[in-house]
Amino acid sequence: MIKKPYLLFLGDAPDQLAAKVARGIRDWRPGDSVGQFRLPGCAAHMNLPDLTIKEAREAGAQTLVIGVANRGGVIADNWKEVLAAALESGMDLASGLHNRLCDEPSLVEIAGHKGCSLHDVRTPKVDYPIASGRKRSGKRCLGVGTDVSVGKMYMALAMQQEMHNRGIKASFRATGQTGILVEGNGVPLDGVVADFMAGAVESLTPDNDDDHWDLIEGQGSLFHASYSGVTLALIHGGQPDALILCHEPGRPHMRGLPSFQLPSLAQLYETSLSMAQIVNPSCRVVGVSINSSQFAEEDARRCLADAEAETGLPATDPIRFGAGPLVDVLISP
Amino acid sequence: MIKKPYLLFLGDAPDQLAAKVARGIRDWRPGDSVGQFRLPGCAAHMNLPDLTIKEAREAGAQTLVIGVANRGGVIADNWKEVLAAALESGMDLASGLHNRLCDEPSLVEIAGHKGCSLHDVRTPKVDYPIASGRKRSGKRCLGVGTDVSVGKMYMALAMQQEMHNRGIKASFRATGQTGILVEGNGVPLDGVVADFMAGAVESLTPDNDDDHWDLIEGQGSLFHASYSGVTLALIHGGQPDALILCHEPGRPHMRGLPSFQLPSLAQLYETSLSMAQIVNPSCRVVGVSINSSQFAEEDARRCLADAEAETGLPATDPIRFGAGPLVDVLISP
Repeated sequence: MIKKPYLLFLGDAPDQLAAKVARGIRDWRPGDSVGQFRLPGCAAHMNLPDLTIKEAREAGAQTLVIGVANRGGVIADNWKEVLAAALESGMDLASGLHNRLCDEPSLVEIAGHKGCSLHDVRTPKVDYPIASGRKRSGKRCLGVGTDVSVGKMYMALAMQQEMHNRGIKASFRATGQTGILVEGNGVPLDGVVADFMAGAVESLTPDNDDDHWDLIEGQGSLFHASYSGVTLALIHGGQPDALILCHEPGRPHMRGLPSFQLPSLAQLYETSLSMAQIVNPSCRVVGVSINSSQFAEEDARRCLADAEAETGLPATDPIRFGAGPLVDVLISP
Repeated sequence: MIKKPYLLFLGDAPDQLAAKVARGIRDWRPGDSVGQFRLPGCAAHMNLPDLTIKEAREAGAQTLVIGVANRGGVIADNWKEVLAAALESGMDLASGLHNRLCDEPSLVEIAGHKGCSLHDVRTPKVDYPIASGRKRSGKRCLGVGTDVSVGKMYMALAMQQEMHNRGIKASFRATGQTGILVEGNGVPLDGVVADFMAGAVESLTPDNDDDHWDLIEGQGSLFHASYSGVTLALIHGGQPDALILCHEPGRPHMRGLPSFQLPSLAQLYETSLSMAQIVNPSCRVVGVSINSSQFAEEDARRCLADAEAETGLPATDPIRFGAGPLVDVLISP
């Protein structure tokens, strides 16, 4: 568990996109960050107060979260000074970078001395079990994509928000770096050793109240040659009761795989449902989540109508038009 | 690459089953071992000469292979004495145990001093890439199972032997501990970090001659909740041209999952082919490999006839009746 509230470290991010981890936290947990810390040259902002380490600590910050990608894959010296100062002030550090905080001897030394934690959220800290396949109580919903990076995490977070607004029990279950930093805990699934992937997902979604929904963050795609194994482990470990098809219209090919076309929503429906029914025969596909951010509103509405016609299911862009239609169908008997 | 020939270490194996790694090597690479080494109380044997470390070294042994499971999951002191002596004599060590040789300081020290290697074949030694999905030259065949441990590795090894007997170019591509020790190299797929599984399989099965077949060792099952993600990574990384359905008749439930029934061969056919055709639309299912070791011959032949009737494909038990029918159909246009 990563302690909140956070101070969001934006470093010298050249633009908003470079700080997308911070943005995810700000968008979905707006009350969880006391401020932002920016270095000279930083062009990103989170509409949060700029605080010094001392000011952040006085405002109650428990953890400095690196909310930005590091240029060249290296933790630069001017970053390290800030990170060291945060540790010295008593804050923990959390990072989703490929380079690990735990591999920086200077930070490890200060953290040990001050009794602070270094959270490298890409690296599993737990030894997960082999999946048992046992049916758990409570309900689970999983987003499956025609491709990677089509908005599965934002869909799950939007559904959680809508369900909480309606007083429905629901938990977001994070499986990726940004999701873990948003939620404060989770399983970094793509960093788990192959044999333990499905077991890690079982651990993440334990027995719960019969009327409680786990909203599991999706990963990869059954149709993406690079990551499909992770997706299937998520389906078989998660044992979803409900699947939501996630799609971004207009992509010329699978992301990173120029020779592969995206599947149709109908193909995704059939393939993901048949794989899910291996572990939960009563699983059903309930709706479609469209990422229409590249389209004008009229075109976006046409995308939704197309998706509804193709699948016979309600479709929405949960960010643009709200997650209401997905929650409606999820909780309908 | 693990250097051959081997000395097979059988330790204090209580029975033949405990030494199944050694048996795999002896069965499939009979010329690769100069002898066996047994401790007092060992009830297993490989029909190889019992050699001292000195005699094995004089006979040319390059690597001592631990061909037995360790009782209680601990490398006992009486084992360590032998392993140390083997290193002192200049041999490398290779092991598929869960405990790693590299975690034994006394062995690490001697190996460093003597310039010998410690091969822990469960632990990937290479940083594998993310899968590219690129089509490679040459042909690939993969066994897929109704369950785990149904004879996929023995099928691939039997096919390799049959193809070599006929002068057909074929390589066994090992993906598990025993397979790696049999072949001397491979990818320990279930120990690879999730993001890199499919990329590891691509690395294992690179471009090759147009008339060359990779016979890829299968892992897990698409229908086994604990390991299905590994299986799908193998299918999408391997991009097989041909699938062979593998089955052991008579199992009451999926191994380790008492509440899960095995799929039918028809279900396995449909599901595995549709997943394979995502990356290779011309993939086909060519035959069925039956593990009939629990049956008398007449019943075994009936199992084959049943499988042929259900799938419309040739079926054989490649160990009992030979892999000929599978090779025939594999190389038919």
